[in-house]
Amino acid sequence: MQTNEQLLSIIENYLAQTEFPAEPELLYAPIGYSLAGGGKRLRPMLVLLACGLFSDDVQQALPAAAAVEVFHNFTLLHDDIMDNAAVRRGKPSVQAKWGRNVAILSGDAMMIYAYRLLSGVPSAHLPRILRTFDDMALEVCEGQQYDMDFERKRKVSVVEYMHMIELKTSVLLAGATVIGAILGGASEEDCRKLHRFAIELGLAFQLQDDLLDSYGDERLGKAIGGDILEGKKTYLMITAMSRADEPTRDILRTTCCNEKLSDAEKIAAVKAVYDRLDVPRLTEQQIELRFDRALAQLDTLSVGSERTRQLKEFAAGLMGRKK
Amino acid sequence: MQTNEQLLSIIENYLAQTEFPAEPELLYAPIGYSLAGGGKRLRPMLVLLACGLFSDDVQQALPAAAAVEVFHNFTLLHDDIMDNAAVRRGKPSVQAKWGRNVAILSGDAMMIYAYRLLSGVPSAHLPRILRTFDDMALEVCEGQQYDMDFERKRKVSVVEYMHMIELKTSVLLAGATVIGAILGGASEEDCRKLHRFAIELGLAFQLQDDLLDSYGDERLGKAIGGDILEGKKTYLMITAMSRADEPTRDILRTTCCNEKLSDAEKIAAVKAVYDRLDVPRLTEQQIELRFDRALAQLDTLSVGSERTRQLKEFAAGLMGRKK
Repeated sequence: MQTNEQLLSIIENYLAQTEFPAEPELLYAPIGYSLAGGGKRLRPMLVLLACGLFSDDVQQALPAAAAVEVFHNFTLLHDDIMDNAAVRRGKPSVQAKWGRNVAILSGDAMMIYAYRLLSGVPSAHLPRILRTFDDMALEVCEGQQYDMDFERKRKVSVVEYMHMIELKTSVLLAGATVIGAILGGASEEDCRKLHRFAIELGLAFQLQDDLLDSYGDERLGKAIGGDILEGKKTYLMITAMSRADEPTRDILRTTCCNEKLSDAEKIAAVKAVYDRLDVPRLTEQQIELRFDRALAQLDTLSVGSERTRQLKEFAAGLMGRKK
Repeated sequence: MQTNEQLLSIIENYLAQTEFPAEPELLYAPIGYSLAGGGKRLRPMLVLLACGLFSDDVQQALPAAAAVEVFHNFTLLHDDIMDNAAVRRGKPSVQAKWGRNVAILSGDAMMIYAYRLLSGVPSAHLPRILRTFDDMALEVCEGQQYDMDFERKRKVSVVEYMHMIELKTSVLLAGATVIGAILGGASEEDCRKLHRFAIELGLAFQLQDDLLDSYGDERLGKAIGGDILEGKKTYLMITAMSRADEPTRDILRTTCCNEKLSDAEKIAAVKAVYDRLDVPRLTEQQIELRFDRALAQLDTLSVGSERTRQLKEFAAGLMGRKK
């Protein structure tokens, strides 16, 4: 099979070749703009890698891989309207560049386009793949709604948070993986295991994202402490809230909007609480647990370890580690 | 086959039975609210009637009929955000009742739900039905974009307008009809003829809608002259503009925002121009032409006239006339 780098460039080529009608320009131009905006292409990579577990022909999975990537970019496009986000991957978001109405409608067209790509899979697999995709897509919407609900909620439990990120992040990775596996000819049982693999991997990935936002990582050029300054309810914040006494909870709740503090002071104050409550170590433990559970699923598949090696490497790379 | 009244109540029952999850409430409650909001159920009726042309089992087409109705209501939900509309079918629109973000996301979920319903059709028909649905859905988005483009355009030709309403209105009727026909077992050729039937019927229906908005109809409780007061580019306005001299065009362009005139005076002034330019008669001619073309298609189908009778009656009823 091709290396992961080769698969990535096959995906990029396929997406770049996808042509959209020229008219109406305000409907189709934002779609091309979104898809050309880069990103790590994790989801289409998972489609191809999962297909490759069971079949030597991963090219057959390209339309489905593109469908999943187009759907993912559709969710970003609409999320940016809901969050009023001006920037996406270092460029103006569609809603900032073209306005809200264009973003709504071109997002809608993008979702339909994802289904059109999906409709191109071999018809023997179509019913099962559609069902997987529909369920996945609805759950992603549920995750986004819970995420918005949480902004207005005073108290969010760790269990509620894990459920939300499972829906918002993991489910799309799981859908991509299962769709790839179906196309490769996987059994129902292998599909279930791969679903679990991707759910756990997504949780590990999202928790690591939360951790890195506050504790950083030189590999990412990301500003540190953004979540703290926004007062976001991340895994770190929710864990800290669940372990803190009432005066400490007050610090956690109020620091982000304390006008007497500089940004650096706010970040330092919240991180001091996190450190005192052992939050970074607990988060790391949870990441390890989820990542190990993910990999363990791969060892129970009906295929040999020589076939799972590449997906394991990809998962490790996603978590920024060698395996 | 059941009468049209019976079919309508079968559709209403089926839609009312559709259950949505209770949580997250802000995602699913607006979907139930939209679907319970009434409407004429034209599109699901077309699915069942077209199926009934070729098969005595129209019940099999119910999931697809519901899918088309859910998709239609999704478009209304997002259109209401784009138009900032507060009222839909005499009740607060979803965006007025729950806010813009809820309307965006529950609309997205609604579109996915439409696909989920569609995925339930017999798998032998699934690829063809999906392709029909995808193409239809994308064209409806194109129509909505052209409609928004026209608001900012100074000059819209009759040809451009007809193309826009074909995409925005006719295409959905045509998709519904073709999907029903496929489920009934129609040939490709009969599907093409039924597509043409529904396109022409949709054009007749939309032009009649334009005409009634200015010239009224006691059967509808609709306020008269709304399009004129909004300065909307309807078939009447565009036809008048294409026939008027420059001073008359100025009247047509400026009357709606002339602060010296009352609403009644504005409506009277524009209608005086329409009457002088023979616009109502030209519009009626166009409606007749389109409606006749629609019905003529039905006579070329491979089924006997005893099977087309009910669809003809429905089409005539839609246009408010006995056939």
